[in-house]
Amino acid sequence: MTVREATPEDAEAIGRLLDAFNREFDEPTPGAAALAERAEQLLTDGELTVLLAEPGPAGVAVLRFRPSLWTEALECHLAELFVVPEQRGRGAGRALMDTALALARHRGADYMDLATSEDDVAARALYESLGFTNRDDGTAMLFYEREL
Amino acid sequence: MTVREATPEDAEAIGRLLDAFNREFDEPTPGAAALAERAEQLLTDGELTVLLAEPGPAGVAVLRFRPSLWTEALECHLAELFVVPEQRGRGAGRALMDTALALARHRGADYMDLATSEDDVAARALYESLGFTNRDDGTAMLFYEREL
Repeated sequence: MTVREATPEDAEAIGRLLDAFNREFDEPTPGAAALAERAEQLLTDGELTVLLAEPGPAGVAVLRFRPSLWTEALECHLAELFVVPEQRGRGAGRALMDTALALARHRGADYMDLATSEDDVAARALYESLGFTNRDDGTAMLFYEREL
Repeated sequence: MTVREATPEDAEAIGRLLDAFNREFDEPTPGAAALAERAEQLLTDGELTVLLAEPGPAGVAVLRFRPSLWTEALECHLAELFVVPEQRGRGAGRALMDTALALARHRGADYMDLATSEDDVAARALYESLGFTNRDDGTAMLFYEREL
């Protein structure tokens, strides 16, 4: 299992993976082709960083960077992490996260955040093993969202 | 209570509010002056959107925008929301959020997210009354973070 940073030429694979991700979890998706087109545009614009686990690709991680308000560094948001069902349990998620953390540090980020479901025990164990915490002064931090 | 969008000239007030925010919750802060300098730079660069509740300013909301991967629109992240202790309970938080939602829609965002503490009952009630949800298929969504 190797992880590499995607280029705009990987847009089709990225669209396919993200579409499969949302279909599996019954989330709305504009379809693989529309996602590929959008990913290609955002990768070209430098708005998006995508990691792919090969071969397959078996999995994908989507990172977003922004300048931090609290320091002179960048902040990194892990927007998506997905491994195709038939490849789970083989370390793809951990390999993607190891590379994501190294890449974020290399780019100059001093902070990373993400959201996950309370019942996604495997993802939570992975994130916690990598040093992420859901606790602030012993209290859980909750993620809220809404469409506009 | 009125809410207006901050300009780089408001950097000193923003730095003071954000510094007070982190001091109250025992979070690290680089100090009001450093925060003011960073806010001025990011506002000038168009990397940051800040709302101030006047008079005072009594409160501040910090918004970050990025192009969505899932649609052709923008996503908005509410990075900070703070009202000074002596002004709480007078609607400043709600006024800031009402303006934040309207501004995000006006800018072309179709989605907003935020993180808050499980024990911050007042903030959670405000967010939930405004249509934000912490639930995905009935399960809580958790926020994780780490320094790099």
